[in-house]
Amino acid sequence: MSKKVFSALWAEIEAIGRVSGGGYIRYALDGPDLVLRDWFRNQADRRDMPVTDDGNGNLFAWWGDQWGRGAVLTGSHFDSVPHGGGYDGPLGIVSAFLAIDQLRAAGHQPSTPLAVVAFVEEEGGRFGLPCLGSRLLSGAIDPAKAAALTDRDGITFGEALGATPAGPLPGLKSRFGALVELHIEQGRQLAEPVGVASAIWPHGRWRFDFTGHGDHAGTTKMADRRDPMLTFAYTVLAANKEARLSGAHATMARVEVEPNATNAIPSLVRGWLDARAADTATMDALVEAVTKRANDRAGRDGTDVRVTAESVSDEVTFDTALATRLSALLDDAPILPTSAGHDAGVLSAQVPTAMLFVRNPTGISHSPAESADHADCALGVDALARVLSELT
Amino acid sequence: MSKKVFSALWAEIEAIGRVSGGGYIRYALDGPDLVLRDWFRNQADRRDMPVTDDGNGNLFAWWGDQWGRGAVLTGSHFDSVPHGGGYDGPLGIVSAFLAIDQLRAAGHQPSTPLAVVAFVEEEGGRFGLPCLGSRLLSGAIDPAKAAALTDRDGITFGEALGATPAGPLPGLKSRFGALVELHIEQGRQLAEPVGVASAIWPHGRWRFDFTGHGDHAGTTKMADRRDPMLTFAYTVLAANKEARLSGAHATMARVEVEPNATNAIPSLVRGWLDARAADTATMDALVEAVTKRANDRAGRDGTDVRVTAESVSDEVTFDTALATRLSALLDDAPILPTSAGHDAGVLSAQVPTAMLFVRNPTGISHSPAESADHADCALGVDALARVLSELT
Repeated sequence: MSKKVFSALWAEIEAIGRVSGGGYIRYALDGPDLVLRDWFRNQADRRDMPVTDDGNGNLFAWWGDQWGRGAVLTGSHFDSVPHGGGYDGPLGIVSAFLAIDQLRAAGHQPSTPLAVVAFVEEEGGRFGLPCLGSRLLSGAIDPAKAAALTDRDGITFGEALGATPAGPLPGLKSRFGALVELHIEQGRQLAEPVGVASAIWPHGRWRFDFTGHGDHAGTTKMADRRDPMLTFAYTVLAANKEARLSGAHATMARVEVEPNATNAIPSLVRGWLDARAADTATMDALVEAVTKRANDRAGRDGTDVRVTAESVSDEVTFDTALATRLSALLDDAPILPTSAGHDAGVLSAQVPTAMLFVRNPTGISHSPAESADHADCALGVDALARVLSELT
Repeated sequence: MSKKVFSALWAEIEAIGRVSGGGYIRYALDGPDLVLRDWFRNQADRRDMPVTDDGNGNLFAWWGDQWGRGAVLTGSHFDSVPHGGGYDGPLGIVSAFLAIDQLRAAGHQPSTPLAVVAFVEEEGGRFGLPCLGSRLLSGAIDPAKAAALTDRDGITFGEALGATPAGPLPGLKSRFGALVELHIEQGRQLAEPVGVASAIWPHGRWRFDFTGHGDHAGTTKMADRRDPMLTFAYTVLAANKEARLSGAHATMARVEVEPNATNAIPSLVRGWLDARAADTATMDALVEAVTKRANDRAGRDGTDVRVTAESVSDEVTFDTALATRLSALLDDAPILPTSAGHDAGVLSAQVPTAMLFVRNPTGISHSPAESADHADCALGVDALARVLSELT
């Protein structure tokens, strides 16, 4: 398809949720995300695709029987990390609608139902648990537990959704024949315009609660302090060192401090560890090493550490036969792994799943500097249309 | 006076602004602080003391000529650090009203005007600059600059005050004969119920802006990162080490992260250094050493650091003759320095100033665990009444 056609549809959503600095704040089920969900319904209407949701906040626009057997799904998510990029997620939804336009223009008659899907809360940017929508749909999380997750203002997911989530879709394995998620690549691994995913690194989030003694920053002698900020700072550096030593990735990028006042030694510093590795054993060893070093330092600081796993995802190997088939179909497109989590990874446990990646020229993501060339995006739509034509 | 009388008046304000966890959130000119300011006016009314303000948000309740020559001031502040203690500040105001009751009961006729004062924004907990009210009153800060200071919601001090601050009081040196601020002691330096201050350590706040490259925490290779959280963490530990080496105090207790998401390497980490020492040369050398180490580490992390002094206060030596006189009057009460800043320290540059300290059994302050024995507080009122009787 032409770059111009892609750019025209892209322009409809480009400004939604963009804030100063050029990044996006699109929290699930909040302001801009609600606008994008309305846009989704309008796009479906324009194409005579009825929209239903699954009771978990995930939207489905149907070409063919709703919830029919062996349906092929394609899509991604609208929500962003705070001040994230605009392509991470929405590219897969915009490309899905455009691929359907191509299939119809070519006179394709799908042999199975086809649905465009918008998963809710993929980033965990609002309620803290990534891939919440796909976890609910596939039964990977208890609906009551999901309903109780809170955002920064104390609003629960259940309140934002307006209901307790419905939970897993009955007969999911027979209803869904395949899922293909198109996504911007998030590293510098892809030299071609389009690639096919092989696997997702195991990854997870661990919350570290460092507790000490709140006191006056001016008057408390250094020797009398029990300052949890010191233990946190040491753990940040330890996580970085351990990841480098083991060839894994570790990041402590989020922190909350109580009371977070310049002149008050904190009573609590809460930091989150994001850890990922090529295999689960390496990731587990990394988290264990960081936890041990945090505890050792806490002993010296007179503080305490409690570590809670908030979400841990095992390694995902996408359907190898499907990936090989799609690569061949796409003129031997490169097959590559990723260390980013995706809804496709969650569903791959139950549904034959594949991902297409569109080239990321700088490799930057989760940042306002994320970008994609619209010529590559148009080639991504072409590839997705060929894949959907083959699968339906 | 009896402990019971003290406790009865104390009980009137004890619950105002107290939050779960037992600490107080009393931000200047916001909810609970406005209630406390109304309480101040009511207390003054009960005692037939007319209340005026100085156009800067500081309240004065007068016994004798308003703004008359050689007035003796006593009081403190209502505002707290977030989740701070209840005694830091309000103890001085409650004690001032009770001391006046004692003087009147004893038939004392003051020879000069006497005023109870409530200074605004002493902690800098809302607008970031400590002792804002006393700085304005004494001309230590430009009123336009003070008016433009913003809180976390973007509200300016001028908006909260409802006007541009009036700035320095004309003829301040002749209008005010003395200031006596009673305050809870904030370390473990005072073994007697009541002591007299000798000096305040030089102290200040420096903002460190660490900037890097925002990117995806999962996909960005460790070697490709420019993560400002690492530079921040190193600086936290460096500040602690440098303070221990030099016998000074250094704390990094407040941090802001952009975007502060678990799965996004930050583009910005902003941390505040609170540094204090027995002399200015030691404090300056400490800040210089921390800044150098932060810059060295930034070079290795591929990040940048910008350091901004937000407020720096030189050493304060309170009027030595006055301190000696008050100590003698109070049965040789101990004379001790403090490393906490106070409005009395700001005004001491222009007005003969003294501070009385009430014993702190645990030494904890700026924390919900701050406490005082009401028997000691009653002795504090007695001491303040003797001092005011002597000075007026």
